[in-house]
Amino acid sequence: MLYYSGPVARLVDEFAKLPGIGPKTAQRLAFHVLNSPPELAQGLAKALVEVRQSIKRCSLCCNLTDEDPCSICQDTTRNSNLLCVVEEPRDVIAMEKARGYRGYYHVLHGAISPMEGIRPEDLTIKELLHRLQNGDIQEVILAANSDVEGETTALYLARLLKPLGVKVTRIAHGIPVGSDLEYADAMTLNKALEGRGEFG
Amino acid sequence: MLYYSGPVARLVDEFAKLPGIGPKTAQRLAFHVLNSPPELAQGLAKALVEVRQSIKRCSLCCNLTDEDPCSICQDTTRNSNLLCVVEEPRDVIAMEKARGYRGYYHVLHGAISPMEGIRPEDLTIKELLHRLQNGDIQEVILAANSDVEGETTALYLARLLKPLGVKVTRIAHGIPVGSDLEYADAMTLNKALEGRGEFG
Repeated sequence: MLYYSGPVARLVDEFAKLPGIGPKTAQRLAFHVLNSPPELAQGLAKALVEVRQSIKRCSLCCNLTDEDPCSICQDTTRNSNLLCVVEEPRDVIAMEKARGYRGYYHVLHGAISPMEGIRPEDLTIKELLHRLQNGDIQEVILAANSDVEGETTALYLARLLKPLGVKVTRIAHGIPVGSDLEYADAMTLNKALEGRGEFG
Repeated sequence: MLYYSGPVARLVDEFAKLPGIGPKTAQRLAFHVLNSPPELAQGLAKALVEVRQSIKRCSLCCNLTDEDPCSICQDTTRNSNLLCVVEEPRDVIAMEKARGYRGYYHVLHGAISPMEGIRPEDLTIKELLHRLQNGDIQEVILAANSDVEGETTALYLARLLKPLGVKVTRIAHGIPVGSDLEYADAMTLNKALEGRGEFG
């Protein structure tokens, strides 16, 4: 028995392909679209088509952008001695929102993961090496995530980049600001102890 | 500071207009679309446009459909003496999935709500009266929800329909199957007691 008519069923199916959206939520979204003015459906459809047509990788930092080079690479007020290597475009956004960094970025588009079959050559490491040869970068900050894949990637990059004579650093591990010691896991606590600094 | 390039920002905004999707989820969905094959974005865009173009209200039951009359109204194997009045198209789907009902439906597209400014004339009550005058309907089952708006709507319809000589019934209140008495609220418990029937 088909409970929806064809076009509704197709919309429910398409919504359910998105991450974190199950059949119930997909149905709710589809009926919301049907009960809303046509502009809602048209606006979302247009944005979906446009984003796939216009967004490509920046030829310098490999971040997703609609202009090449991207707005960050074009920004000459940044410190060209600093390069922060992150896994994903959303990590660039997180760093920019934190407002604590004024250098340039390099987006790897993933992390080394033998489990998922992601090898170093699947990441944008070739582009990274090319940038290091040509630019005036003095310090590479490895800001890959703190999980197994991120640590593996950071270690791999550190061994690859150090022989080039560039300073390689890793973002600090520790207790998140505003959180309780008692909720921190043992690994984080030990890393926070190891990384302790002079104070006051 | 604009963190995303224009087309990505527009897609995030469009996703965030959907119910239950905040800015973080919208960003996650947008990046998922960017990291997926173009077919995902195209499929969703096509389904969105198509659903708004092809879906209209059935001229008989007012359910959403792409053919008129809808597949349920066309189904001559159903009991034409029974008419179940529900608030929304999703209620029809819930009833059909439960497989316990083999009559026809009428979709009100809402419930009377002075708070939200929804009056009886905003619902499909005119169409309902028209059906009752012409068809061979003997019983109208009021299956509006059990909230204040649903009860108001059911009471309003009962007073309107009874003078027409049709039998008007309301779906039962009671303890949900498989649930514990101790978690039922007082109102539900009292309704379940009132509605008790012979057993065994």
